[in-house]
Amino acid sequence: MATKSPVRKRVSSARDARPPAAGAAGRRPSISRDDLIAAALGLVGPNRSISTLSLREIAREAAIAPNSFYRHFRDTDELAIALIDLAGRALRKIIGEARHRASVDRSVIRSSVEAFMEQLGAEEKFLHILLREGNTGSEAFKRAVERELRFFEDELCVDLIRLAKVNNAPIAEPALAAKAITRLVFAMGAAAIDLPREHHAAILEQTVVMLRMIVAGAQRMVAENIQPG
Amino acid sequence: MATKSPVRKRVSSARDARPPAAGAAGRRPSISRDDLIAAALGLVGPNRSISTLSLREIAREAAIAPNSFYRHFRDTDELAIALIDLAGRALRKIIGEARHRASVDRSVIRSSVEAFMEQLGAEEKFLHILLREGNTGSEAFKRAVERELRFFEDELCVDLIRLAKVNNAPIAEPALAAKAITRLVFAMGAAAIDLPREHHAAILEQTVVMLRMIVAGAQRMVAENIQPG
Repeated sequence: MATKSPVRKRVSSARDARPPAAGAAGRRPSISRDDLIAAALGLVGPNRSISTLSLREIAREAAIAPNSFYRHFRDTDELAIALIDLAGRALRKIIGEARHRASVDRSVIRSSVEAFMEQLGAEEKFLHILLREGNTGSEAFKRAVERELRFFEDELCVDLIRLAKVNNAPIAEPALAAKAITRLVFAMGAAAIDLPREHHAAILEQTVVMLRMIVAGAQRMVAENIQPG
Repeated sequence: MATKSPVRKRVSSARDARPPAAGAAGRRPSISRDDLIAAALGLVGPNRSISTLSLREIAREAAIAPNSFYRHFRDTDELAIALIDLAGRALRKIIGEARHRASVDRSVIRSSVEAFMEQLGAEEKFLHILLREGNTGSEAFKRAVERELRFFEDELCVDLIRLAKVNNAPIAEPALAAKAITRLVFAMGAAAIDLPREHHAAILEQTVVMLRMIVAGAQRMVAENIQPG
């Protein structure tokens, strides 16, 4: 099979992030749903949106006949949404792990933002996919990214409540704080992605301060009984 | 001259926002630089990016011969950047006015966010242009939007410092607070733009609470001498 090596490499990382596709047997048993997703992942880039991928191109990248594509996906839109889901899940895993490695409130913010910003330079374009498709492409793609962002917010909200207990520093409106943090980090990431890498460290520092403002403000709202609305 | 009436209407609003183009005389003296910008503004929409506009199409919308286009712009990219500049300036004016009408800290946040969110439903697509072109299109378009966002931040920073004095409530890192607020409001606007209008009120309320968190946190950093980094 003539699969190119960069694709191979990405296939394995795509497999790490999701369970192997079931029932992917057929005339070419080695081509799975994940192989197709990995092929698509190999084609999208900083200036290439999922929505511009053609079925023929993905099939070529995965080294299959175009018709074999339909064994796994109805169309390229369905594959694109699977790719957005994969990107969201992989990214949540990376950032969730960074958050759980950090033990105190202060370094939680820094280590999470660091893990996020590192993804700007990662070979897998998980972050790029979420940043790009959330703002361009079809309504269905945007909804898929919006859903991933909400998963981020939900996990972060649980963590903010957990940290508030650990640190004995209750915060007001943890769900809104989580949403503010998530949206702001993605917005700062979107601004950083187009800048040369030497600017990323400064953007990381700015983002850390911004998130501290949000957390400090949400704590203060409880402490001083400020009405949020 | 066969200019359609919706264009005419937009022309006048474009004229309000920028001084009349100088030296726009020619065989068709009534077609100015602003008329072309207004024609382009009439073509972009919620699902139509500036980058997809063709010179021929803009000329048709403005009711001029395609060649006349070059009297004002080198190419459609130059017009697109003029359009982004116009959108940024018009939007800053609208939100700056809302901010200055409000007199106390509390209502400043609400009235600014209200003015911003109102623009989601406005006939002129100023906000849509900034939201869309900041994330798609060419590097030059993104840079133009980034420049407009920085103008927003600079004006907001001046206002945050002014309000901090008026309210005798100093804030830490006003430039970063202004940047956090601007990026977050635009991110929330981008999320709102794809939702049915009945969701906008809820997003407005969420955004107001988020901005209060940022301001309260930045004030707390001064009051408690919290190190931002």
